[in-house]
Amino acid sequence: MSARDAGFAVTTDKTTVVRRIGVLGCGRIGRMHADILATQVPGFEVVAVADVVPAAAEAVAAATGARVSAIDELIGADDIDTVAICTSTDTHVELVVKAAAAGKAIFCEKPVSLDIGLVDTALAAVEQAGVPFMIGFNRRFDPGHKSVRDAVTGGTVGDIHLLRVTSRDPAPPPPEYVAVSGGIFLDMMIHDFDMARYVVGSDVVSVYATGAVRVDPRIGEAGDIDTAIAVLTHADGTITTIDNSREAVYGYDQRVEAFGSGGMAVSDNQPVHHGWSMTRESRGAQPLAWFFLDRYMESYRAEWRAFHAYLADGGPSPAGVDAARACTLAALAAKRSWREGRPVRTDEIG
Amino acid sequence: MSARDAGFAVTTDKTTVVRRIGVLGCGRIGRMHADILATQVPGFEVVAVADVVPAAAEAVAAATGARVSAIDELIGADDIDTVAICTSTDTHVELVVKAAAAGKAIFCEKPVSLDIGLVDTALAAVEQAGVPFMIGFNRRFDPGHKSVRDAVTGGTVGDIHLLRVTSRDPAPPPPEYVAVSGGIFLDMMIHDFDMARYVVGSDVVSVYATGAVRVDPRIGEAGDIDTAIAVLTHADGTITTIDNSREAVYGYDQRVEAFGSGGMAVSDNQPVHHGWSMTRESRGAQPLAWFFLDRYMESYRAEWRAFHAYLADGGPSPAGVDAARACTLAALAAKRSWREGRPVRTDEIG
Amino acid sequence: MSARDAGFAVTTDKTTVVRRIGVLGCGRIGRMHADILATQVPGFEVVAVADVVPAAAEAVAAATGARVSAIDELIGADDIDTVAICTSTDTHVELVVKAAAAGKAIFCEKPVSLDIGLVDTALAAVEQAGVPFMIGFNRRFDPGHKSVRDAVTGGTVGDIHLLRVTSRDPAPPPPEYVAVSGGIFLDMMIHDFDMARYVVGSDVVSVYATGAVRVDPRIGEAGDIDTAIAVLTHADGTITTIDNSREAVYGYDQRVEAFGSGGMAVSDNQPVHHGWSMTRESRGAQPLAWFFLDRYMESYRAEWRAFHAYLADGGPSPAGVDAARACTLAALAAKRSWREGRPVRTDEIG
Amino acid sequence: MSARDAGFAVTTDKTTVVRRIGVLGCGRIGRMHADILATQVPGFEVVAVADVVPAAAEAVAAATGARVSAIDELIGADDIDTVAICTSTDTHVELVVKAAAAGKAIFCEKPVSLDIGLVDTALAAVEQAGVPFMIGFNRRFDPGHKSVRDAVTGGTVGDIHLLRVTSRDPAPPPPEYVAVSGGIFLDMMIHDFDMARYVVGSDVVSVYATGAVRVDPRIGEAGDIDTAIAVLTHADGTITTIDNSREAVYGYDQRVEAFGSGGMAVSDNQPVHHGWSMTRESRGAQPLAWFFLDRYMESYRAEWRAFHAYLADGGPSPAGVDAARACTLAALAAKRSWREGRPVRTDEIG
Repeated sequence: MSARDAGFAVTTDKTTVVRRIGVLGCGRIGRMHADILATQVPGFEVVAVADVVPAAAEAVAAATGARVSAIDELIGADDIDTVAICTSTDTHVELVVKAAAAGKAIFCEKPVSLDIGLVDTALAAVEQAGVPFMIGFNRRFDPGHKSVRDAVTGGTVGDIHLLRVTSRDPAPPPPEYVAVSGGIFLDMMIHDFDMARYVVGSDVVSVYATGAVRVDPRIGEAGDIDTAIAVLTHADGTITTIDNSREAVYGYDQRVEAFGSGGMAVSDNQPVHHGWSMTRESRGAQPLAWFFLDRYMESYRAEWRAFHAYLADGGPSPAGVDAARACTLAALAAKRSWREGRPVRTDEIG
Repeated sequence: MSARDAGFAVTTDKTTVVRRIGVLGCGRIGRMHADILATQVPGFEVVAVADVVPAAAEAVAAATGARVSAIDELIGADDIDTVAICTSTDTHVELVVKAAAAGKAIFCEKPVSLDIGLVDTALAAVEQAGVPFMIGFNRRFDPGHKSVRDAVTGGTVGDIHLLRVTSRDPAPPPPEYVAVSGGIFLDMMIHDFDMARYVVGSDVVSVYATGAVRVDPRIGEAGDIDTAIAVLTHADGTITTIDNSREAVYGYDQRVEAFGSGGMAVSDNQPVHHGWSMTRESRGAQPLAWFFLDRYMESYRAEWRAFHAYLADGGPSPAGVDAARACTLAALAAKRSWREGRPVRTDEIG
Repeated sequence: MSARDAGFAVTTDKTTVVRRIGVLGCGRIGRMHADILATQVPGFEVVAVADVVPAAAEAVAAATGARVSAIDELIGADDIDTVAICTSTDTHVELVVKAAAAGKAIFCEKPVSLDIGLVDTALAAVEQAGVPFMIGFNRRFDPGHKSVRDAVTGGTVGDIHLLRVTSRDPAPPPPEYVAVSGGIFLDMMIHDFDMARYVVGSDVVSVYATGAVRVDPRIGEAGDIDTAIAVLTHADGTITTIDNSREAVYGYDQRVEAFGSGGMAVSDNQPVHHGWSMTRESRGAQPLAWFFLDRYMESYRAEWRAFHAYLADGGPSPAGVDAARACTLAALAAKRSWREGRPVRTDEIG
Repeated sequence: MSARDAGFAVTTDKTTVVRRIGVLGCGRIGRMHADILATQVPGFEVVAVADVVPAAAEAVAAATGARVSAIDELIGADDIDTVAICTSTDTHVELVVKAAAAGKAIFCEKPVSLDIGLVDTALAAVEQAGVPFMIGFNRRFDPGHKSVRDAVTGGTVGDIHLLRVTSRDPAPPPPEYVAVSGGIFLDMMIHDFDMARYVVGSDVVSVYATGAVRVDPRIGEAGDIDTAIAVLTHADGTITTIDNSREAVYGYDQRVEAFGSGGMAVSDNQPVHHGWSMTRESRGAQPLAWFFLDRYMESYRAEWRAFHAYLADGGPSPAGVDAARACTLAALAAKRSWREGRPVRTDEIG
C-alpha cells in the first residue's frame, strides 16, 4: 500500500487529465464519494452536486467547493464530463438514460434497477451512446478480496472448485427499507453475486437459495428474510456458496475463500487494529470494523482510481454493463428459488 | 474507528475553533503534516508554509492553499496562532525559542536537540512564555500501541513488570545521515524511550545498552551501530527491553508488549491487508506496511486531533516538555552505556 | 488440557472399573483403537483381537498383549464385556446383532450400514438387548469442535442461525473404494451431518445437495462426485452448509463455524506447530496436520474416555442410536438430492 | 508430524536395537520419562527403576513393567546398558561418575551441577570412560523452536543479528525450592541459555543480567529474584535477549525469535486448541498450555528418539558435554552480573 493509498497526499500529477464530475445524490453514499473525489484521489474535480433535498446538496457543496445544481441542469452542463449517480435506486434508470444521451461518462451506484427489463433499457442507452459506464461494485477493489481474485487468475488456487462468500451486516436496516429495497437478495447479496462472478471468472447458470427470518420478525412481515444462503453453479462447473445475515453483533463480517486444485486463497476479516491481550481468564482482541464506511474505504478510493484509469486509457470497464445485468439476474433467480423451493436457472429470468 | 479516523469526510463542526497554523519545513515530514492539516483532520487551517528551498514551500502551498512565507515572517505573522516545526533537527532550538517569544502555540518534531543543554534552553523558553507545546512523539497515538498503554492504566496488565519494544526499520538510512543524526540511540531509539515512559508511566533511571554493526559497515565507519539493544530500569522497578535494527527486510517491524501480574497486552504488526493463501508447499500472507508513512498515518492524524483538543481545552500536553527532555536524556545515557560497556544512570547525564 | 490428555501417564485410578474389551477388525482404524485402549486411556484392557487376516490380528495382539481370537469366539467370550467393531462396513450389522445378543457393550465404527433398513435392524437389536451402544463419530470429541458446541449450548452464540462445516481430505481415496463406500455423502459427509446435529442440537428435516467431479475423473466413472455441497434445514429453522472435497492439497481442512444472535464460534484448522517466518518475499507457516490420525488423535482418546464414563455411569450414549440412524438418513437424502436436483426431505427416505 | 509423533502406535521396528534402560529417580520428571520410554517411543525397555522413596519407585515399576532396584544395584546391573538420571540436582555428579565408571550410556536431567568445578568433574568422568552422554535440554527438540534453529542453519534468517527468548512459568515455585535450586538463572534461565547457544550456533562470551522481585516477596527473602532479563553477546557478535518471569497468569509463555539479514523466524505460543469466538463485547480464544508437561510433551518424545539415534549411530551428542558446561557457565555469569551490576565475561567464571 503506498502512502497515497493510505489516504495521504492528494497531489495530482501535472500530466493527469482531470475529470470534471457532477455528483447526483448527496445522501450518505453520495457525500462519501464527493469527499473522496475532492480530497483523497487525484484526477477529479467535483464541479457540481445535486440532491432533491437542497440542504444535503449545500453541505456537500460547502465541503468540496462544488456548486449546487438542479439534477437536469447538472447532467446537461457543458463544464461537466462525468456524472456519479448516487441517488435512490428507483431513479437510476432515468438518470442513466439521460446522462448517456448527454454523452457523459457514467458511474452508477448498484443496482441499476430491481427490474431486469429496466436494467436492459438503461444498459441499451449506455451502449447506444457509447459512453463509458461503471457500476459501483466497490468490493472488487478491496485489497484483500482482490488478492483472492489474483490468486485465482495468477494460478495459486489452480483450477477453482469452490468459492465461499460470507457477508453479514452489523445491524439490520429498518423494516420500511426492506419493503422497497427488493429484499435481501437484491439489496445485499447482489454484492456477493458480483464477487462470485469476479473471482470465479465465469457466469452463474443456476441458483439455489433458502433462508429464514431469525433477526427481526418485522422483516418477515415486510415479506423478506434476514438470514439467507445461496448455492450458485457457474458455467465452468465451479460452485459458490454465499451466506448473509442482517445482523452480526460482532461487526461487519466480510470474507471470501477460493478453493481449488492448487490450494486455497482467503480474504479474512480485519480487526480495527492489532492490539490484543491475554489474562488468566481470557484472550482479547479488537472488534471488526463496524460497517462499510470503515471496512471498505480503501476499496472506494481504489474504485475511483480504476474508473479514472478506464476513462483515460479505455479498454473494458472495471465493472461494466455485463456485471450490472448479470448480478441483477442472479439476484432475481435467488429470490425465485427461495420462494419456489427449487434451484432456478438464470435463463429462466431474462 | 470512526469513518473520520479512516481518512473520511473532513467537515469541521461549526463550533470548532479553527487554529491558524504555519508549517516550518516542507520536507517529507512537513509535507505530510501539511496535507493532514489541510484535508484529513478538522480544526486547522494551513495559513502559511516556509522552507529554505523555495520550490518545496511552493509545492506544499499549492496543495494546501497556503501562502509561502519566509521563516521569521511566518513566526511573526499576526494571522497565525500556531506553528509546526518540521525543519532539520539542528534548527529546532532556535525556532522554538523564537516561536515562544512570539507567543505561538508550538508543535515541534522530535528531537528538540541532540544536546541536553540546548534542550533545556528551548524548554525554558517555552515555560517562560507559557505557550502550549507538544513534541511529535506520534507513536503514542497509534491505536494498537495506545491499547497497550490503556491495558496498563486500565488494569488488564495488573502491576507492570516487563515491557518489550521492538522497532526495526525496513532499510538503513544513508551513512551520511547517521553522521549528523546523533546515531541510532538519538534518532531512532528515542521513539522507543518515549514509548517506554508512556506505557510504563514511570521515569527511566538507568540504561544498559549494547549493539553491533551488522547491516552496513559504512554505518560503523561513521561511528555508529545499526543493531542495538537497551535495557531500561524505571523508577517503579519495571524493566524495559528495546531492540532496534536499521534493516528488517520484511518491512517496518513495530511491536510493544507489556507484561505484568494480571497478564499481557501486545501491539502487534499489521499486514497491509488480510488476504492469505495456502498451497501444498507454503502458506502465504501479506507483508507488513513498508514504513512510517504507511504504518503510522493514523497516529499522525490522532496526534493532531490530540493537539487540537489540548489547545482548546488546556490541561497537560499530550507529549510535553517532560517527554522531550526525558527521552533525550535516556538516549544520551544509552549512547554512553554502549560506549563505556556499563549501565549508566540518567542522572549522570543531566 | 491435562497431562493425561496430551498422551501422558496411563495410570489407572484404583477405583476405576476396567472394561475388558475385544477389538473386531485390525486394519488401520482397529489397530489405532487397540493402541489407544492399551496405552493411552485408562479403564480398558484389550483382552482379545480378531481379524480375517491372521497376521493383522497377530501384530495388534503382540503390541497390546491381547490374545488372538476368532470373531465369533471373541463375541461369545466370557472374559470380555465390551466389543469394538472396527471391521469393514458391510459386516457391521451382523456383528452388532451378534454382540447385542451376547449382551456385550458395543462400540461400532461409523456407519452402521449404507442401507437404512439394515441400520434399523441393527439398532432394534441393540435396543431390544438393552446393551450400551456408541457409534464412532469421533469428531464430536475434538476439543476445538466441542468448544463450538459448548458456545452454542452455553449461550455465547445466542440463538443459532447458521452453521458452516468444511471438511476436505488431503488426498482422494482409490476409485475402487468409492465404488463400495456408498459415495461421498455416505462415507465422508456423514461425519459432517453428525457435526450439524451435534452442534445445532436439532434434527435435519431437508437437504439440498449438489456437486461435481473436479479432482479425479475416475471417481466420476465410478458413479460418484469428489466435490460436494449440502444445505441442511434443521427442525428449529437453523440452516447448515457443508462443503467437502476429496483433495485439499494443503492438508486436512476441518473447520466448524456457528453463527447466531449472540455472535460466532469457530473451530479453526491447526498447524502442526507454531513456528513461522517472514522474509522479504514471503511469510511462511506450518502446514496443517496431514490426515485424521494426526488431526483427530485427541478426539479418539476423548471418545474412549466418554465411552468409559457412559459405561460406568449410564445415561444417554455420547453418540447413540439416534445419531447413527439420523446421519445415514441425511446422507441418503443428500445423495438423492444430488441425483434429482431438488431439495429432499429426510422423511422421504425412511 | 507423523502419526507416531502424535503419540500413536508404539510398534517397534524389528531391526531396532532395544536399549535396556534403568531410570534413577521416580519423581515427576522421572515418572514422565519412564512412561514415555515404556509406551510412547520405540527402542527402549524400562528394565528397572529406583528412588529413595520406595513407594515412588513401586508406582512407576507397576505402570511400566520394570523391577524396583536400589540405585547402586541398578547402575551396576548387567542387563542394563543405559541410565536416565532424574534424581535431585545435588546427586547428579555422583551418579554420572558412577554410571560412567560402570560403562553405561547416560541421559542426565539438567543441570549437572550448580558448581562449575563439579560439572567439570562429572564431564571428565564421562569423557574418560568414553560413554555416550546427553543432557536433558528438551526444548531443542520442540518442533516450533527447532524450526527457528532450522531457519538459521538453512538460511531463511540469513546472518543472524538478534535472538529473543521469552520464558515465563505459569506459577512460581515454593520459596523453599528457590533456596536450593541455585536461583532463577540456574534453575530456569539455564534452558534459555541452551536455546541461545543452540539457535545462534555460537558460544556466549558475556552476559549482562538484571531483575527484580515482583511476583512473590518470599522469593526475595530467599535471596533470589522472580523477574529477570539477560543480554548475551555471542562469539560471532549476535546479541540475545532473554526475559523470564516466575508467574505468567495466562499460562506457560515460551517463545523464540531469530532476526537477521534475511528475515525473521519465530516459534510462537500455541493455544490448547483452535476454537475461538467473537461476540459484541469480546473476542475469545483458548489459553496457552498450562506448563511443561503439556507444552513440551512432544519435545520429550523427540529427545528420546534423538538419544536413541545417537546411541545407535554414534556421532556428536544431540546435547552433549559442551552444552552442559557452557550453560552452567552462562548462568553463573548472569548471576554474578545481576549481583555486581555490570556485564560479566564467561571466562571470568571458569
